[in-house]
Amino acid sequence: MESANEGSTASARDRIRMAYDPALLRTAGERLAQELGRHMAFVQASGGSVLNWFSPQENIARATHLADNVVDSVDPTELVSRFERIVHEMLARGHNLHDPRYVGHQVPAPIPLAGLFDAVGSVTNQVMAVYEMGPWSTAVELAMVSKLAGYLGWRDGEYAGLVTHGGSLANLNALLVARNVTLQTCWEQGLRGTTKPPVLVVQSDTHYSIARTAGILGVGTRQVIKVGLDDRRRMNVVELEQTLAHLQASGHPIIAVVACACSTPIGAFDPLNSIADICEKHGVWLHVDAAHGGSALLSPTHRHLVAGLERADSLVWDAHKMLFVPALCAFLYFKQRKHSYDAFQQHAPYLFDPTAPGLAEYDLGLRTVECTKRAAAYGLWGAWSLFGAQLFTDLVDVTFDLGRELYEKLVYAPDFEPLHHPECNIVVFRHLPPELDGATPAEQGQFQRRLRRRVIESGEFYLVATNLDGTEALRVTLINPLTTAEHLDQLLETLRRMGREILS
Amino acid sequence: MESANEGSTASARDRIRMAYDPALLRTAGERLAQELGRHMAFVQASGGSVLNWFSPQENIARATHLADNVVDSVDPTELVSRFERIVHEMLARGHNLHDPRYVGHQVPAPIPLAGLFDAVGSVTNQVMAVYEMGPWSTAVELAMVSKLAGYLGWRDGEYAGLVTHGGSLANLNALLVARNVTLQTCWEQGLRGTTKPPVLVVQSDTHYSIARTAGILGVGTRQVIKVGLDDRRRMNVVELEQTLAHLQASGHPIIAVVACACSTPIGAFDPLNSIADICEKHGVWLHVDAAHGGSALLSPTHRHLVAGLERADSLVWDAHKMLFVPALCAFLYFKQRKHSYDAFQQHAPYLFDPTAPGLAEYDLGLRTVECTKRAAAYGLWGAWSLFGAQLFTDLVDVTFDLGRELYEKLVYAPDFEPLHHPECNIVVFRHLPPELDGATPAEQGQFQRRLRRRVIESGEFYLVATNLDGTEALRVTLINPLTTAEHLDQLLETLRRMGREILS
Repeated sequence: MESANEGSTASARDRIRMAYDPALLRTAGERLAQELGRHMAFVQASGGSVLNWFSPQENIARATHLADNVVDSVDPTELVSRFERIVHEMLARGHNLHDPRYVGHQVPAPIPLAGLFDAVGSVTNQVMAVYEMGPWSTAVELAMVSKLAGYLGWRDGEYAGLVTHGGSLANLNALLVARNVTLQTCWEQGLRGTTKPPVLVVQSDTHYSIARTAGILGVGTRQVIKVGLDDRRRMNVVELEQTLAHLQASGHPIIAVVACACSTPIGAFDPLNSIADICEKHGVWLHVDAAHGGSALLSPTHRHLVAGLERADSLVWDAHKMLFVPALCAFLYFKQRKHSYDAFQQHAPYLFDPTAPGLAEYDLGLRTVECTKRAAAYGLWGAWSLFGAQLFTDLVDVTFDLGRELYEKLVYAPDFEPLHHPECNIVVFRHLPPELDGATPAEQGQFQRRLRRRVIESGEFYLVATNLDGTEALRVTLINPLTTAEHLDQLLETLRRMGREILS
Repeated sequence: MESANEGSTASARDRIRMAYDPALLRTAGERLAQELGRHMAFVQASGGSVLNWFSPQENIARATHLADNVVDSVDPTELVSRFERIVHEMLARGHNLHDPRYVGHQVPAPIPLAGLFDAVGSVTNQVMAVYEMGPWSTAVELAMVSKLAGYLGWRDGEYAGLVTHGGSLANLNALLVARNVTLQTCWEQGLRGTTKPPVLVVQSDTHYSIARTAGILGVGTRQVIKVGLDDRRRMNVVELEQTLAHLQASGHPIIAVVACACSTPIGAFDPLNSIADICEKHGVWLHVDAAHGGSALLSPTHRHLVAGLERADSLVWDAHKMLFVPALCAFLYFKQRKHSYDAFQQHAPYLFDPTAPGLAEYDLGLRTVECTKRAAAYGLWGAWSLFGAQLFTDLVDVTFDLGRELYEKLVYAPDFEPLHHPECNIVVFRHLPPELDGATPAEQGQFQRRLRRRVIESGEFYLVATNLDGTEALRVTLINPLTTAEHLDQLLETLRRMGREILS
């Protein structure tokens, strides 16, 4: 028994040595670079499908098969060859966001080299919770927090900012702070003390993570009060004022007003200065979900869309949307520095090390839901340090301009109907060929859904669907900067051709 | 004005084309592989410091300088050269977890190639929320969810599992479900309805994210009831039984009992079968934080430590701890499949697409706090498919065995005092050289703190500190499989030498 263990320990050491072998890392990494280069050229030239469509069952069976049938080997040649086969499979079954015909969700075709900088963090595992564990990842995050805050016109030392794993988590973190500030005792005592239920007041088109947040925080999804929209689907500020006055008169604590810059369905930018005026007058916390639109600050042409954003008490700005870095890299800001500790402040003493006074300020795990974080800002900081700020301005301008171009094409096409005048790179429209004259709204809606599914499963384009007040529609986000006006023409032609196939 | 815009658009297109250039990606990727290979060999041979210590201010200034001083260029040679300089800086200022003298937090020196698989997801941005956006990342996640569930003895179709961005978020998600199941109306109506405050009953050494969770969910941190520990710092099951009986008799809804496998401070494994018996008897949800210890299931030698884990209603198991993949890749399981939707179920209809019935089952964003997730299982699935299951068993066995070896060395060293008999790879001890004879407990504690800071800032070793019921101590996690018994001897010698320097 003892000798059997000895034997297996020796072989365990060999296996571990090979898994950690620096030469294997180098060779596998070189092959990966070559494979990614080939793949990227193929995808950018629309060499294959946008979405490689397999059913979940097929894909899961294949992934399971590969993990189940491994020949135990410490031979480097065999391992490199197997590594290449696995990478090839991952690429062959993925979604090709770098194909210029990808015009789908608010998830970008990222700057490829941002993914390489991200890999430095992954391979070496630079995590953050306490500064010690990720000194450079902490520094990079704080450098980028400061840089983006500069576009808000905020001064270091006055605000607080951090990076978290996505916009939904950032919204949760922001509204947790707003809840704790509004209801001072609730962190410790729970949400049982108030006489009238506390509420969240939100723009009607806010992302579904906001309602979720009300459920998570114990506020309750029924306590989410929706403010109606104006004719551009922006928050109706007259109704906002009336709603706040009514709620305050009836004694409901208001946790926050949540505005959008921009909203998910059509990319509408709320009138932030008017909303900030009303919130100030009523003494209510203003949270702005600028996950998508925050990046407009980098564009002299488009930054007017987010005028007033700097007046928010808290705001979310996703770099993994319009700053074109891989998911996830969401920035969360608090206008007042002290509020960044209102989420979890009672834990600071626990980790505080008296031999390094002042260092706890840089222990970012004290301020986020995750405790341990990835080096989530490596991609953005690396790409910024390599290409400079102008690239990010260009990316916003080129894609926002493309939204306007698509709109103009839709206006001039008799068989297409844009459902709004786009303010950015999100465009919602319907295809209504002559064959649908006289069709009911339900039939028209079903046609949009069927058309979209046919298109995405064909791999020719990838776009999404939405529903505006009961009207089913197609929805495009121009979030691959390699997409051109010619691709948009091709999109309309593809929709026409597949529409005819459905209707024939 | 118009022509100026035209001019800048042309140059913007050039800049974007270069940022997305496949040849640049390939060349930069090859250089990265070479740099990572060199770095890994240097670090594994202890060629430099474990932790490269610079103050936060110095590091932030350097990161800011690099991001601020970028020469706008579309010359590929210049860009590759700059890319190399940035990567070099990232590596030179990071923390070297692959140095065998890294014996710190519960964050592993990961399998390097897992980081390369992760990079495939980053460069191509395979995110999950709806299946369509990340078909292969979804498949890979579900394949690994099934594989790890197999070690629990669970059958596909009966349980539910998912991957999330870290153990704290997984704990939050699990206890959110427990709260919603215990207090059926609270998701919609908020936490105002119950007559007596609902409570969480936890092992006294549970991770601080559990108390946070009580604050976040609106339960209140004061409603966290701590059950005392036995002489091995495990949950005292007699006290647990009494606590539950008392709470139920007095009408407090019990959201869950939280047990540890293992606890953070000393790695104590709670007696899960006894705890499960008591929870069953009282009809209370059992949540087990097995973030660290879940991986013991892969070891025939050590799996007895987690006997009964399969009886938990929910459990957390971090692959980015003892499965040695980069952060973050936390598995969250529910024993009953239906519970996986109890967190956010009201949103399923919103995203449900009638043209693809059944597909919403695979839209994993419906079940996690993040909505959009990274392809967080790529690293684990890739490494598993490359090296096979035995490597993961080896990693657990080798590092757990090393914990026992360190303990034995401490027992035999007159100037060291182990504070417990380690059950795994976490070891807590004190260095008490003869010069401290007659020192007060406060002086002994201050010595441990000063000793640790001196060691980590020197770069010779990296270890952490803890405080057990007022006793300051040194704490080691053997979570780099390249660490050997010789390194442990060297650790004790280093502590002795630096201790003398402090005391002289």
